[in-house]
Amino acid sequence: MTSGELVEQIKKKKSYLCVGLDTDITKIPSHLLSTEDPVFEFNKQIIEATKDLCVAYKPNLAFYESMGVEGWMSLQKTLDLIPDDILIIADAKRGDIGNTSTLYAKAFFEKMNFDAVTVAPYMGKDSVTPFLAFKNKWVILLALTSNEGANDFQTQLLADGKTPLYEKVISESSKWAGADQLMYVVGATRSEQFAHVRSLAKDYFFLVPGVGAQGGDLKAISRAGMNAQCGLLVNSSRQIIYAGNGTDFAAKARVEAQAVQNEMEELLKEKGII
Amino acid sequence: MTSGELVEQIKKKKSYLCVGLDTDITKIPSHLLSTEDPVFEFNKQIIEATKDLCVAYKPNLAFYESMGVEGWMSLQKTLDLIPDDILIIADAKRGDIGNTSTLYAKAFFEKMNFDAVTVAPYMGKDSVTPFLAFKNKWVILLALTSNEGANDFQTQLLADGKTPLYEKVISESSKWAGADQLMYVVGATRSEQFAHVRSLAKDYFFLVPGVGAQGGDLKAISRAGMNAQCGLLVNSSRQIIYAGNGTDFAAKARVEAQAVQNEMEELLKEKGII
Repeated sequence: MTSGELVEQIKKKKSYLCVGLDTDITKIPSHLLSTEDPVFEFNKQIIEATKDLCVAYKPNLAFYESMGVEGWMSLQKTLDLIPDDILIIADAKRGDIGNTSTLYAKAFFEKMNFDAVTVAPYMGKDSVTPFLAFKNKWVILLALTSNEGANDFQTQLLADGKTPLYEKVISESSKWAGADQLMYVVGATRSEQFAHVRSLAKDYFFLVPGVGAQGGDLKAISRAGMNAQCGLLVNSSRQIIYAGNGTDFAAKARVEAQAVQNEMEELLKEKGII
Repeated sequence: MTSGELVEQIKKKKSYLCVGLDTDITKIPSHLLSTEDPVFEFNKQIIEATKDLCVAYKPNLAFYESMGVEGWMSLQKTLDLIPDDILIIADAKRGDIGNTSTLYAKAFFEKMNFDAVTVAPYMGKDSVTPFLAFKNKWVILLALTSNEGANDFQTQLLADGKTPLYEKVISESSKWAGADQLMYVVGATRSEQFAHVRSLAKDYFFLVPGVGAQGGDLKAISRAGMNAQCGLLVNSSRQIIYAGNGTDFAAKARVEAQAVQNEMEELLKEKGII
């Protein structure tokens, strides 16, 4: 999916919602456990209930990997039923030496046909660029994450006494690829830094975790972080997919997703994007 | 496996060799391609030919993940046949927010029964500590890697003008766990920094990639980096597993592993460990 196509979807759906498919077999409604593939069945119903309200799905691979071979099979079946006009993000946080990153990129972009993959920056340029060699595919690089541990290294100031590491990650990596191939993860729990991060990477999309269960504020981060093309994909996982726990779980997920989409529609209008 | 058990194996085998099972279906001998599971068959013969010469195996998960479900099945079968007294490292470079890291930890330590997993530090303490909650299991944290991209962020100096980021990673993370649970990745291509890194983490084991194909020097890094308990696991992947490409590939791999073990035996004697 190109940047233009993504922006078109955002305008059409009046939404920049990404639904996180963090599907945990211990949390899904019990009536699904007797189906042949409960994780897939859960995802299928969630996708059917939300696909007109979101522009991206983001399976966090840990949830599937932790189930072994069966988990990978549930994931592949899930990917196969997501419509082509929705961005599919592998939340994988990979990153390794060049030949190994190439293998991960092939796994996600060719074998599994994801549109985007989250990548950790610690190993530097040659660990990231192999993911950039695939046409119309995206790298979403960790910049400033939503967890408390972000303060351990990401916000450490460098030798000039004023640049935190995450800014260096953005300034360096923006030399490796443009806004048509590269996005950044910027946590919603950092709303006070959001406008500043936007000023560092004006044209890039940000994938924003941390709204909802982690406490981030959609309005605050949208007002501080939107650019003229929207430039945001705001992820919500638990708040939507675990909104209900009965046979009506998908309908309840839709209600939550609809509420977020309504709020996003207002924010897109406020910014003059739609 | 405990630290004491690992040291005992090193003394018994006179080796601190870790064999990297970076098994690439496009590189394995062609006569194996007609077998039911070529990747497993290759690993099986490599393990049989080298298991008395090494103290650890390190499958890089990218190689298996890139093959999809079949790759994970080949990996599981491979893990099942590695003897219990050999440390098995998942070279995964994972790291995510707490609940997600817990899932990765369960996947590697419980589901697949690895002894150790490599973890990326960028997301900080709460992304690493979930891996430390498992008894007799190991976190191997990326500190200073062997690739060129290590210079992009890892060697960046912090606000005091003298501490590079990787030193901060070591000093912070060594508060999270002791040398009986935590190791560091320190690339062999950095032999000039090796003695210094050892001074920062005297008691910790280092997993050292980059010897062999990547150009690192075993003697130099061993003399600079060994501690009284050895404290090193030196990895070699391509140089050993792809030493031959015919029906005698396993025998050729053994010759290479034997040469490394011989050199390690001399270095262990030189240091007075055996």
